[in-house]
Amino acid sequence: MYSVEVRDRIMIAHSLPDRFFGPAQGLHGATFVVDVAFFREALTAQNVVVDIGAALDVLKQTLAPLAYQNLDTLPDFAGKLTTTEFLARHIFDAMAAAAKAGALGAEGHGLSKIRVTLHETDLARASFESGLS
Amino acid sequence: MYSVEVRDRIMIAHSLPDRFFGPAQGLHGATFVVDVAFFREALTAQNVVVDIGAALDVLKQTLAPLAYQNLDTLPDFAGKLTTTEFLARHIFDAMAAAAKAGALGAEGHGLSKIRVTLHETDLARASFESGLS
Amino acid sequence: MYSVEVRDRIMIAHSLPDRFFGPAQGLHGATFVVDVAFFREALTAQNVVVDIGAALDVLKQTLAPLAYQNLDTLPDFAGKLTTTEFLARHIFDAMAAAAKAGALGAEGHGLSKIRVTLHETDLARASFESGLS
Amino acid sequence: MYSVEVRDRIMIAHSLPDRFFGPAQGLHGATFVVDVAFFREALTAQNVVVDIGAALDVLKQTLAPLAYQNLDTLPDFAGKLTTTEFLARHIFDAMAAAAKAGALGAEGHGLSKIRVTLHETDLARASFESGLS
Amino acid sequence: MYSVEVRDRIMIAHSLPDRFFGPAQGLHGATFVVDVAFFREALTAQNVVVDIGAALDVLKQTLAPLAYQNLDTLPDFAGKLTTTEFLARHIFDAMAAAAKAGALGAEGHGLSKIRVTLHETDLARASFESGLS
Amino acid sequence: MYSVEVRDRIMIAHSLPDRFFGPAQGLHGATFVVDVAFFREALTAQNVVVDIGAALDVLKQTLAPLAYQNLDTLPDFAGKLTTTEFLARHIFDAMAAAAKAGALGAEGHGLSKIRVTLHETDLARASFESGLS
Repeated sequence: MYSVEVRDRIMIAHSLPDRFFGPAQGLHGATFVVDVAFFREALTAQNVVVDIGAALDVLKQTLAPLAYQNLDTLPDFAGKLTTTEFLARHIFDAMAAAAKAGALGAEGHGLSKIRVTLHETDLARASFESGLS
Repeated sequence: MYSVEVRDRIMIAHSLPDRFFGPAQGLHGATFVVDVAFFREALTAQNVVVDIGAALDVLKQTLAPLAYQNLDTLPDFAGKLTTTEFLARHIFDAMAAAAKAGALGAEGHGLSKIRVTLHETDLARASFESGLS
Repeated sequence: MYSVEVRDRIMIAHSLPDRFFGPAQGLHGATFVVDVAFFREALTAQNVVVDIGAALDVLKQTLAPLAYQNLDTLPDFAGKLTTTEFLARHIFDAMAAAAKAGALGAEGHGLSKIRVTLHETDLARASFESGLS
Repeated sequence: MYSVEVRDRIMIAHSLPDRFFGPAQGLHGATFVVDVAFFREALTAQNVVVDIGAALDVLKQTLAPLAYQNLDTLPDFAGKLTTTEFLARHIFDAMAAAAKAGALGAEGHGLSKIRVTLHETDLARASFESGLS
Repeated sequence: MYSVEVRDRIMIAHSLPDRFFGPAQGLHGATFVVDVAFFREALTAQNVVVDIGAALDVLKQTLAPLAYQNLDTLPDFAGKLTTTEFLARHIFDAMAAAAKAGALGAEGHGLSKIRVTLHETDLARASFESGLS
Repeated sequence: MYSVEVRDRIMIAHSLPDRFFGPAQGLHGATFVVDVAFFREALTAQNVVVDIGAALDVLKQTLAPLAYQNLDTLPDFAGKLTTTEFLARHIFDAMAAAAKAGALGAEGHGLSKIRVTLHETDLARASFESGLS
């Protein structure tokens, strides 16, 4: 199995309004360093999994609606707890849709799996990975 | 599959008294930077895999009996070769038991897998991962 | 010249309400990974610059009032642009005052310089350093 | 499942002569930081996956024919697009063959999987992993 | 003294045709991860050293003529040994000129120092720093 | 001012037998990742500060007597508190002597400064730097 993994980042505000989160219930924020890995069983004719440049572009477009935002005010996230895990899944869904829609070029078809990892501090990170149908 | 991974560290002395280990047969030591990843198929009601704060606390408690110790003198390790791989498994067992005992809260139940990684230098690391029954 | 540098981190929300900051004018947030370096010309009787454990404790106490906060609502920062550079200076002032007040133990006296570095993403960081009188 | 992962690096020139690669069609170069992970279901009698020192030695020997080379001039790569993914597979094949040939010692037998990761910048990396028969 | 440091990267080919460089005499290549730090004694009215976004843009423009190039073919470098140290100075000169020319905005004036660091591998890096007149 | 910085590492045991060190009074150990930076005002005829390969070799030789040792048993360190700061100075002295003795080649002469940094964990490091006479 081959993979290519690319990195970008966003700076956001949000709150986690559930007692479970203790001091993180109030409005605070995070820098999320975001790694997205694309997996293929076999390489394309150009010996790649995906075009790294295209992958970085699609990741930037995927993150743009979140960058410098207060996630509490985004309609998509209304009533949702925007944990690091939740955001990893959100970005996964967008990347999987972009691959399907051809935004990664022909190479985006035939991917077997995508994994999204968000580093929230130097000590903690979350990820979501799943196969593509 | 979702995961959350947290980091802590210990500084220990030990020897590896088997010819196999060459210069590491004598008493020396290591800083182990320890990453523990918890995996779940689905998020909890709070959209988490585990509480990151609880995970960091349980990891600290797990590492406490080893911190600043000479592993050669610990009864648990008598007659054992305390390689990085062995210690990854030792910490895995403790984390798995803690999850089962409820130390990670309700979220500790329903974990599908744990992976423990020990970085021994900037050039080498070992890990153990296994499903939880 | 000797130095010892320790690390902690905070997750905060803030806005930078000046046209200069473009998309960062609105409410967003950041994880700041904070490194504080202490400098001495000569080591103490215990061969240290400062006690690393004490330095980590004082740093944690210094960051506690900021952790998980919306900086826009803190009286100390009213009317201030809480840039990364500004926060580096703010933390420097607190660490310098703590050293002077004895919070770092006897070792806190005789420091010649402190440097505070805040990493805001994997691509950008700011610092403030100054001598201690 | 246990793993041990070791790191080395090479600095090479190459071109990627296919329109697909845009500005990377011309002769340019890269530092590849190379991580190789070895996996085993159970540890050996010495509680290891492989000898870390032996693994580092074999990796160095594997990389030696590539170090400081212009890959475009190497007979092995004639007519090949030497992408990061392709090189990950090339190094995998060499490491797998070395393990089979006994270069990793008795411990090299019984490995279940090898994974090779090449970091080409701070933002992008590729990997190949496969089971060993 | 305040500083802000930003990061970008280039992938280049070059040779170092002097016996001094041993195996690096031939055509090979490198990824250079480039950090540029800007220093000021006092912050601007916006509490910054420089605009981080502008600094990243100017760095990208400065690196563009080198990106994906064979440095041996660039007229500017004819007859020069393009060591990591030399390139650190080259980038410093370009950044200092850009600051003077106003490319960093008004904030580029009043800088007291610039430092450029090039990481060539995980084990080695070079830098050049100097005051600005 | 130019600099070149290179990295190596050692794994050692030691104790810090003074009440000041709390839990670190007993025998424990550390991995020290060691960075050594060499500074020059002007580059040599080959456009370098020092030969990076030679610097890595000299660093390895300097660290060899400490590697895999219990520092408590080394005659050089009898009665000494082998803190991270102390070891940074010890390695500085050895590197400075090596430069003076010609171990770094002709390039070792004319260095203006050396800085040695020891990372003891991901959260703490110490350094010593000084001019060379």
